[in-house]
Amino acid sequence: MRRANLSAVLRLLHFHGPATRSDLVASTGFNRSTVGSLTSELVKLGLVRERPGVFSGKGRPSNVVEPVSTSVHVLAFDVTPSSVGAARVGLGGYLLQVRRRLHSASPHDVPAVVDLIATLAREMQAKSVPGSVCLGLVVSVPGSVRQPDGLVRRSPPLGWHEVPFAELLRDATGHEYPIAVGNDGDLGVVAEYLRGAAQGQQDVLYVRGEVGVGGGVVVDGELLKGAGGYAGEVGHIVVKPGGRVCSCGARGCWEAEIGDAAIIRAVGRDPRESDIEDVISDVAIGNRRSIAGVRKTGEWVGLGLASLVNLFNPRVVVLGGTLGALYPTMEPTLASAYSRALGPVREQALLVRSDLGPDAQLVGAAEVAFADVLEDPAGTLEGRSDPEQQMLSGA
Amino acid sequence: MRRANLSAVLRLLHFHGPATRSDLVASTGFNRSTVGSLTSELVKLGLVRERPGVFSGKGRPSNVVEPVSTSVHVLAFDVTPSSVGAARVGLGGYLLQVRRRLHSASPHDVPAVVDLIATLAREMQAKSVPGSVCLGLVVSVPGSVRQPDGLVRRSPPLGWHEVPFAELLRDATGHEYPIAVGNDGDLGVVAEYLRGAAQGQQDVLYVRGEVGVGGGVVVDGELLKGAGGYAGEVGHIVVKPGGRVCSCGARGCWEAEIGDAAIIRAVGRDPRESDIEDVISDVAIGNRRSIAGVRKTGEWVGLGLASLVNLFNPRVVVLGGTLGALYPTMEPTLASAYSRALGPVREQALLVRSDLGPDAQLVGAAEVAFADVLEDPAGTLEGRSDPEQQMLSGA
Repeated sequence: MRRANLSAVLRLLHFHGPATRSDLVASTGFNRSTVGSLTSELVKLGLVRERPGVFSGKGRPSNVVEPVSTSVHVLAFDVTPSSVGAARVGLGGYLLQVRRRLHSASPHDVPAVVDLIATLAREMQAKSVPGSVCLGLVVSVPGSVRQPDGLVRRSPPLGWHEVPFAELLRDATGHEYPIAVGNDGDLGVVAEYLRGAAQGQQDVLYVRGEVGVGGGVVVDGELLKGAGGYAGEVGHIVVKPGGRVCSCGARGCWEAEIGDAAIIRAVGRDPRESDIEDVISDVAIGNRRSIAGVRKTGEWVGLGLASLVNLFNPRVVVLGGTLGALYPTMEPTLASAYSRALGPVREQALLVRSDLGPDAQLVGAAEVAFADVLEDPAGTLEGRSDPEQQMLSGA
Repeated sequence: MRRANLSAVLRLLHFHGPATRSDLVASTGFNRSTVGSLTSELVKLGLVRERPGVFSGKGRPSNVVEPVSTSVHVLAFDVTPSSVGAARVGLGGYLLQVRRRLHSASPHDVPAVVDLIATLAREMQAKSVPGSVCLGLVVSVPGSVRQPDGLVRRSPPLGWHEVPFAELLRDATGHEYPIAVGNDGDLGVVAEYLRGAAQGQQDVLYVRGEVGVGGGVVVDGELLKGAGGYAGEVGHIVVKPGGRVCSCGARGCWEAEIGDAAIIRAVGRDPRESDIEDVISDVAIGNRRSIAGVRKTGEWVGLGLASLVNLFNPRVVVLGGTLGALYPTMEPTLASAYSRALGPVREQALLVRSDLGPDAQLVGAAEVAFADVLEDPAGTLEGRSDPEQQMLSGA
C-alpha cells in the first residue's frame, strides 16, 4: 500500500515534472497529510526535493516538489547504421548529457560498436554527479531482440544475426550496470506515448524512417509485443510485390520504398554518394527536383500508413526519423494516398510528427531502466546501493 | 469473492465441458467443500447439474458436474453477402440448433435482412426448452461496427453504410432481447481462441476469406480493438498498388486478390456466373485448371500473411472461410510466399485451418452474450428473470 502510494507520487513527478503539494493532492486523491508524508519519504530517499512555492496573493504558498535529476540516472544508447547516440538521463526524464558519434568502423563490426558504447558509458559516467545511482544501461537497436536476454536475433540495417549483444555489453562494461537491449520502434513508441507527441493517448502507432524502417504500437496503453516480443515490424510489410530487394532479403517491403536509400534515389541521387542529410538540405532550400522526389516517396508512405491504421485503428500516428523531418514536404501526396484507409479508422487517427525526433529512442530506452524505481522507490534504491546486488541484477 | 468463485467454476464448465468434482478441485485450487458448495449453488440456479461419476475401480466415484445447455441460451447470427447463419447456442457453447438461409432479397436490402433475422429468432425461440432464459441476440457482420450502439459504419461486402443495425433489430424483435452487433473477424478470432484451433494460445491472428476478407487479432489474451473498436481490417491492407478495385473503393487491397471473386476469376470462371462452391468442388475432383488457379491465389494469401505476422508476431494463424477450405490446395505456393516473413516471427507462428469453419462467427457471437452470466452467475439470472429488467438491459 505504502509502496504503491510512493510509486504513484514519484510517477507523477517523473512524467509530469515539478508539482505543488496541492497539485499532488488533487492528482493522487490522497489527503494532504498522506502527500506530506510520502513526499518526506521520497526526500529522504534523495529522489525528490522541496522548495517554497511562489506567493500567489492569497494564503501560504504550497511547497513545490520536484524530482532530483541527479539522484538516479540511466545510460541510454541508440545504435543506427550511421551512428551511436548516447544520453545520460536523470530522474524526471531529463537529458543531462547527449552525444552522437559516428561509428569508428562499419556498423557491421559488432566488437567496434560494443567498444564505442563502453567508451561513451565510461565518459558519461565520469561526468555524473557523485552519489547518483546508475540504474542501468539500455540500448536501442533496429532489429528483432529476444527478451529477456537481449540477443539480437536479426538486424537487417546493421547486418547483425544472432548477436548476444547484452552479454557482450556486460563484459565490455565490467558487469557494472544492469543491461537491457530493446527494439528501436518499441522504445520510440513508448517515448512518444509517455513524453512525446502521443502523450495522453492510449492507442498509438509510431513509425521511424531511417536507413531501416522500424515501428512500434501501443494498444490500450500497453506496448504490443506479440508472442516473442517481435511485433511491430512495420518496415517489412509488402507494399510492392516484386519490387526492390530489401535489407531483409525479400522484395517489395515498405522499407525498400520509403527508407533513406529509397528517398535518396527518388530525388535522383546515388545512395552510395549522398546521404539523407543532403536531401533534407536540398528540400530546405527549395530544390524542385528534391521536393518532387520526396513527394513521390510520400505516396508510398501514405499507402503503407493506410494499411497500418486499418489494422491498428490508432488515435495518433507519430512519424519519426527521416519521415518526421520530411513530413511537411511529403504531406500532400502522403495525405492523398493515405485517404484510401477505411473511413471509420481514418477519421479517428491523427497524423503528427515526432515531438522527440532523434532523441525518441534515448528517452524510451531510459524509461526501461527507470521502471523498477518508479514501481518500488525504496526497495529498488536499497538494492542498488549495494554493489553486489547491482551486479547480480545485471546478470 | 463468492461471486468470483462461482464465476471461476462456471467458466471452467462452460469452456471445458463436464468435469468431476475432483477435476474442479484440481483446476480451481479451491478445497473440496468450497467446490461442493459452489456446485450446489450453481445447481440451485439451474445452470449445472450433477450425475454420479463412473466407478473407476477404487474408492467412491466423484460426481460429474456438467453445464445445463438448456438453462440459458443465446440466439447467434452471421450475416454474409450470400446468407444468414443462425444458431441457438446453449450454456457450454453447445449449438442446439443451426441453420443457414439464403437472403430473401439482396443483402443490400437492410429491412429484408432484419426481417429474416427476426423470423429466424422467433422460430428458434419457439423451439427452445420452456424456462430457458435467452441472454441475448448477437449478430456478426462483415464490417466496421461502432460500439456499444451497434451502428454498422460501413460494410463493403454488404454495401451498407451507417446502418443502425442494433436499433432496427431491437424494433423488429419487439425489444424482447438484449441485442449486440459485432465484426465477423473479431467474433471469429474470439471463437477460435476460446473453442477452436487457437485454444490455449495467447497471441492469435484469424483471417476469414469470403466475399469480403475479415480478420481479428488476440494480443496477450485480449481482443485487439484499437481506439474505436475498428482494428483488424486485414482485408484492406494494400498488397498490389494500382491493382483491381476493391469493395471499399480503393485499389489493390488484399481482399481484391484473395476474396472469393478473385479466386473464381483465378480459376478461369466468371464471378457473376459461378460461386465459390463450384471452385471448391472442382478442386475436390482434381480439376487441374482450378487447382492451378487456387495455387496462384495462394501466393497472394502467403504474401499478406507475411506482412501480418511481421506486425503481430502471433503464435497461431487461423485461416477460416474459403481460405480454410482451400488451404490444403494452396499450401505449397502459400508457404513459399509466406517464407518472406522475418525469421524470428516466422518460426513462432503456426499456420492452421479453422476448427470451427463456418460456425466460428456463431460461436463467437454467442460468447458475447454469455459474458455476463459467466462473470456473475447469480446476479445476472436474477436480473434476467424479471422481464422489465430484460427489456431495460436490451435498451
